[in-house]
Amino acid sequence: MFNQLGVIGCGLMGGSFALALKKAGLVKRVVGYSKSPSTTEAAKKLGVIDVVAESALLAVSGSDIVLVAVPVSATEPTLKAIRHLVKPDVLFMDVGSTKSDVVEAARRALGKQLPSFVPAHPIAGKESGGVQNAEVTLYQGRQVILTPLPQTNAALVQKATDVWSAIGAQVLKMTPRNHDQAFAAVSHLPHLLAFAFFQSVAAQPAGRDFLSLAGPGFRDFTRIAASEPAVWRDILMANAAELLVQSQRFRQALDGLEALVKSGDAVALEARIRQISEARANWQLGAPWQPNR
Amino acid sequence: MFNQLGVIGCGLMGGSFALALKKAGLVKRVVGYSKSPSTTEAAKKLGVIDVVAESALLAVSGSDIVLVAVPVSATEPTLKAIRHLVKPDVLFMDVGSTKSDVVEAARRALGKQLPSFVPAHPIAGKESGGVQNAEVTLYQGRQVILTPLPQTNAALVQKATDVWSAIGAQVLKMTPRNHDQAFAAVSHLPHLLAFAFFQSVAAQPAGRDFLSLAGPGFRDFTRIAASEPAVWRDILMANAAELLVQSQRFRQALDGLEALVKSGDAVALEARIRQISEARANWQLGAPWQPNR
Repeated sequence: MFNQLGVIGCGLMGGSFALALKKAGLVKRVVGYSKSPSTTEAAKKLGVIDVVAESALLAVSGSDIVLVAVPVSATEPTLKAIRHLVKPDVLFMDVGSTKSDVVEAARRALGKQLPSFVPAHPIAGKESGGVQNAEVTLYQGRQVILTPLPQTNAALVQKATDVWSAIGAQVLKMTPRNHDQAFAAVSHLPHLLAFAFFQSVAAQPAGRDFLSLAGPGFRDFTRIAASEPAVWRDILMANAAELLVQSQRFRQALDGLEALVKSGDAVALEARIRQISEARANWQLGAPWQPNR
Repeated sequence: MFNQLGVIGCGLMGGSFALALKKAGLVKRVVGYSKSPSTTEAAKKLGVIDVVAESALLAVSGSDIVLVAVPVSATEPTLKAIRHLVKPDVLFMDVGSTKSDVVEAARRALGKQLPSFVPAHPIAGKESGGVQNAEVTLYQGRQVILTPLPQTNAALVQKATDVWSAIGAQVLKMTPRNHDQAFAAVSHLPHLLAFAFFQSVAAQPAGRDFLSLAGPGFRDFTRIAASEPAVWRDILMANAAELLVQSQRFRQALDGLEALVKSGDAVALEARIRQISEARANWQLGAPWQPNR
């Protein structure tokens, strides 16, 4: 399907994409570049990439598919560094967790070559990043959101859909704004809340003692508070507007529940919790996407 | 060690205690009572109890150890129903997740027999309650908090310590107030936040679509939002004062993080997240309790 994959950023996401494409026989050669030479060397040793590129531009040279897998704040400088080799028939994608800012970065960096860039967000990841944790199955059974613009090359959007589908992902399309609204709600806000909650417990005078008593519920609730600082710094700032809208909604729901607790109205409180508890029990990870309901 | 265990409330907690004591050879006979006759019948069929009692009082009759395993709001009526058979040499315990309210209920219900009651909170549970989910190993490796009062019979506190230790739990002692402060922070508040968060996402116009995009982080963060409504209604109301103190602390931490996000100060935001992320990564479930640090 492709001759050469260029990976810029050989971490968990980029590395897993390379492994999956190789395994599926979708690419003959993988050329990789990372900011840190030790990362690229590790990727080569692990067989994730075949050739080490000395620069982002050299990873693009000769590639007919390019994955930019860097923290979202590095998207614009990366695209600027490779703009001279962005051609109409080469598929360029990113893996960023926010899309409006990435699209604006691409618009500024690529200008007339913008149609070659298909913004992508695979809903996959692990607590431990880095190429050493890359997995051939990382994207299997996961959703990948594409947020093409009206001017994005339709043939490349199709190619993007085909390549993600071929490695076992389910591809959805939406606008960058809808994407950012949805992920502010289901991903970015819970990270912010988990950070705030863990900090509020740990920072109080008896915090260490409290933490030693915490059980499995606490463990699962705070798992995402251990997420990568640089990645989440970027996501929270890039999607700040939608994040704060969702936080406002959350605060209203919290106010409502606290009012019920204070009211002493046991019947009303139980009814509210029951509604939530049943809805959550009926929710399933990766239930099929049903647009236009 | 004991001749007869009386279990009042043959659900997950009571049933698992009975199974563990039998397995360890700590009791000859288990007599059980539940409000719902079908529950008691199921407990008998499953071999969790040996004899069905027709009332709470009859479950106490002839027992030298009694476990009251009912929702915390049912503690007082239950203790009142059995008060005439509460004797100085019989060990009475509960399993409630809040302790100040349970101790007050016991004080009112038991009067002079209060020394026989050793308030207990095993930090164990599962998403699915009910006797059919009872497990012989539920308390193995888990912490059990005892909150005896100055007047509690010291010999019975020792017996309680011995029996929980014998089924593999680690026993800690603290005051009811310290218990409720700690669990407001590490258990009750995260439940309230998970309820509020899930509700805020599900109740918005695009909520169903958003939920279909949610990933593994969301799944773990909201797992406790599926908890049992009647149990959590009682816990949140019984520990409302400490819960609201913790919620205030949480809101301050959230305000601080949101201010950093809005400030655009990427360095400060990353530093804050890094501090939290590293502290969470270093936290371990069930790390040993080290008092007097």
